Amino acid sequence: MTERKAKLSDLAVLVGGRLIGDPGIEVGSVGPIDSAQPGQMAFLFNKKFLNRVSTCLASALIVPPGVDLCGKPGIVVENPYLAFAKVLTMLTAEKAPEGGIREGSSVAETASIADGVVVSSGCRIGDNVEVGKGTILHPNVVLYPNVVIGEDCLIHANAVVREKCRIGNRVILQPGAIIGSDGFGFAPDGESYFKIPQVGIVVLEDDVEIGAATCVDRAALGVTLIKRGTKIDNLVQIAHNVTIGENTVIVSQVGIAGSTTIGKHCTFGGQTAIAGHVNIGDNVTIAARGGVAGNLKSDQVLSGAPVMEHREWLRAVMTFPKLPEMRKELLRLQKKIAELDVLLNKGDKS
Amino acid sequence: MTERKAKLSDLAVLVGGRLIGDPGIEVGSVGPIDSAQPGQMAFLFNKKFLNRVSTCLASALIVPPGVDLCGKPGIVVENPYLAFAKVLTMLTAEKAPEGGIREGSSVAETASIADGVVVSSGCRIGDNVEVGKGTILHPNVVLYPNVVIGEDCLIHANAVVREKCRIGNRVILQPGAIIGSDGFGFAPDGESYFKIPQVGIVVLEDDVEIGAATCVDRAALGVTLIKRGTKIDNLVQIAHNVTIGENTVIVSQVGIAGSTTIGKHCTFGGQTAIAGHVNIGDNVTIAARGGVAGNLKSDQVLSGAPVMEHREWLRAVMTFPKLPEMRKELLRLQKKIAELDVLLNKGDKS
Amino acid sequence: MTERKAKLSDLAVLVGGRLIGDPGIEVGSVGPIDSAQPGQMAFLFNKKFLNRVSTCLASALIVPPGVDLCGKPGIVVENPYLAFAKVLTMLTAEKAPEGGIREGSSVAETASIADGVVVSSGCRIGDNVEVGKGTILHPNVVLYPNVVIGEDCLIHANAVVREKCRIGNRVILQPGAIIGSDGFGFAPDGESYFKIPQVGIVVLEDDVEIGAATCVDRAALGVTLIKRGTKIDNLVQIAHNVTIGENTVIVSQVGIAGSTTIGKHCTFGGQTAIAGHVNIGDNVTIAARGGVAGNLKSDQVLSGAPVMEHREWLRAVMTFPKLPEMRKELLRLQKKIAELDVLLNKGDKS
Repeated sequence: MTERKAKLSDLAVLVGGRLIGDPGIEVGSVGPIDSAQPGQMAFLFNKKFLNRVSTCLASALIVPPGVDLCGKPGIVVENPYLAFAKVLTMLTAEKAPEGGIREGSSVAETASIADGVVVSSGCRIGDNVEVGKGTILHPNVVLYPNVVIGEDCLIHANAVVREKCRIGNRVILQPGAIIGSDGFGFAPDGESYFKIPQVGIVVLEDDVEIGAATCVDRAALGVTLIKRGTKIDNLVQIAHNVTIGENTVIVSQVGIAGSTTIGKHCTFGGQTAIAGHVNIGDNVTIAARGGVAGNLKSDQVLSGAPVMEHREWLRAVMTFPKLPEMRKELLRLQKKIAELDVLLNKGDKS
Repeated sequence: MTERKAKLSDLAVLVGGRLIGDPGIEVGSVGPIDSAQPGQMAFLFNKKFLNRVSTCLASALIVPPGVDLCGKPGIVVENPYLAFAKVLTMLTAEKAPEGGIREGSSVAETASIADGVVVSSGCRIGDNVEVGKGTILHPNVVLYPNVVIGEDCLIHANAVVREKCRIGNRVILQPGAIIGSDGFGFAPDGESYFKIPQVGIVVLEDDVEIGAATCVDRAALGVTLIKRGTKIDNLVQIAHNVTIGENTVIVSQVGIAGSTTIGKHCTFGGQTAIAGHVNIGDNVTIAARGGVAGNLKSDQVLSGAPVMEHREWLRAVMTFPKLPEMRKELLRLQKKIAELDVLLNKGDKS
Repeated sequence: MTERKAKLSDLAVLVGGRLIGDPGIEVGSVGPIDSAQPGQMAFLFNKKFLNRVSTCLASALIVPPGVDLCGKPGIVVENPYLAFAKVLTMLTAEKAPEGGIREGSSVAETASIADGVVVSSGCRIGDNVEVGKGTILHPNVVLYPNVVIGEDCLIHANAVVREKCRIGNRVILQPGAIIGSDGFGFAPDGESYFKIPQVGIVVLEDDVEIGAATCVDRAALGVTLIKRGTKIDNLVQIAHNVTIGENTVIVSQVGIAGSTTIGKHCTFGGQTAIAGHVNIGDNVTIAARGGVAGNLKSDQVLSGAPVMEHREWLRAVMTFPKLPEMRKELLRLQKKIAELDVLLNKGDKS
């Protein structure tokens, strides 16, 4: 991390917070509230750690409203975690590498590469590809013909974007991400299978991030669409013709089957599986390893497979280990009742 | 998709169907039955949508036997879905790129590359590799020494085939597929592990397709074998010494552990896990996220982990959320019976 | 596999065993005890197969103590499986390729590549990278700036190591392994997410192996650490700031969420999921598809999700299919008890 220094006054503007103390104080890095050193900025994310403010050695603190800074300089801001992300971004920003097409790369004559784009060595850029200004292609990236990539994207090493797929602005592909692989479609032909050509594309809108070795399959016909601001972790499978709404967060190893539509601002925990051809609303949170087999309405927090209301799931899984004991007890009661029944009916008769 | 035009008469031959109407009618693409336009071919896959035939605007329709075409031109065929795959393939076929070894690739002098093979820029082809005619290697494909690849294969960007692995004809590797990585084998050596050399190979027979970032590990000794026509989706793990029969379909994120043998014409849903050293028969269908710990006979449809008969599983998972309530009721009955027992035995004594 | 010949006397030294019979006998390969041929070495791993020793055709056998070799030459050793790994390693060792920087690779001027390192064609080595002697980089490996790689490592094709990550000695990266991709960290900013820079690194200590297409994310701040001797299979996700102890074994498709700490000598079965911010002790074995949501003490064998004691889990999953029947019986007993209650209370009153 290349560390720069920043003045407290500039950081207050950056994070939109209220400055307290000397505006000229400089910090060069960030640190945890209980181990930050002079020259660093510390952050109070959680009022649970309020008592650490007074002993914090950092040159300045960023805190939420209502916190006593104990005479230290700092910035008061509604969302210290967001402020942390912004300050860290500023302090660690690398100088953009000089644009240019490096030796050892191959760029088709018909490709259109904006000024200042970095095409690293080993990149392979096909016919009619367009890459917008400010975009960085790390080594060995492959862009098939007719791919369009917007501005200020960061495409990491060994990522592949297949033919005709379209990527917006400020999109990040982690290493080995694969955009536009064939959807998994076959028509049964007796015992064997006949491949259905996958002639659609993938569209990634602005500010999408795709994790390492994550696969987003091209549509059979039409578009596999990932909307603005959605973040997808590593090793995720997005099948053909899926649509994912804005600002949805998908954790590692999730699998989403074909033609499913997902709303905006959802969160899916790791290893969750979503069946094909289902519709999921907005603001749906699914805990890790959820399993979704049918449509889901908006504004739910779900767990389990098939998913159920999160607290219902918690109670059920807590009871699950008691199943054998429950069964044993059930058999005991069964026997006991049969005995009582005999006794009672005998009693009745007597 | 490069669209060509095709005559109805030629398409009837292609799909092996019965032509109805003007054989000279031309179509250039396909469309859904309810939105296809003139110039397109529409398809009736499901008689549920029979009523849409009369209002369909497509230039021609492909329908199953017994459907009234309402005077429109078309083709009657037993399997319209297969016909769809064939028609789409014909209409969207790209002209094969001109063969040749592109600049920026590395081909060992001892490699044998058939005429007309495309070796794209960035491909790395090791000693004694053989590649059959008609095969296309997209950019940055790596073939280790002594790999053999058949004819008319399509090897997408950044796929890797490690040493000595053998690939048949018409095999497709999606981007980032990895064939012949080391099996995961270690001998315990006190607290640490000693690597067992993985000196076997992988064989992919004809017409196999391997998904993006899917890994097929080489055998420890011998062969990891995927037989003719089997289709494997993205991000699947096939461990060392696995054998998979003909025309089996394996959906994304499935994991198959070492030395397991799987029959032909099976279908495994996404995220299914199969333990090592088990035998699975033919025609076994396992729903998504099944878990297989032991041998399975042929001709079953299974779900759950461990797998059980599908309908049994459905009933069990539907009951699962009621577990806490069942437990509560069980405790209530337990208490009630104890009371009745006291009452009754008192009654008896009195 | 390039086969060499080795003398029994040399192999006895290699495996630290007691030689029986002619020390000059030569073997050139290994074979299963029931099909090995003259010229091969066979191994008895399991005394269950003791009766196969007398009919074994191999030129020599490696057996555990107390086994009668029936007059055949061989080696007696405590751990025949470890001996197998060592003998196979010796017999199949490839001659190291000649060191050198191959044509078609790109090495930054500021990089420091030790003598004898193999930099294959298509490798891209950034500024200030260091690679230790004896290390082999297969084609199309990408090392970002400031990466440090130790001695005698084997980095397979298309592996990527991002900036500043540090790799010890004798580390193996299978093809497509990704070290140092960004951790998945975002600060909510209203409806959208603001990326938290991931400015930490990954450290892989000596003798670590990372599987094909496995992703080890760089820390947000600090280090994602995989300690000495740990072996990780294919398609595994290791999130940012995870620490994994020495000699832990992680099978394919496992996911470990951020900031979790795992002890030494653990074993996690395939598809296991570990939540973030948990602590797992030493010698913890988790069966395939375990789910861990909280801290775990050392020395346990666990299964299920959430994990429980393995035998408890076995009993619970065996009871699971009986749930619907249990529920039905519970309802029957409920009704029966209500009847008995009425009868009895009537009886009481009468």
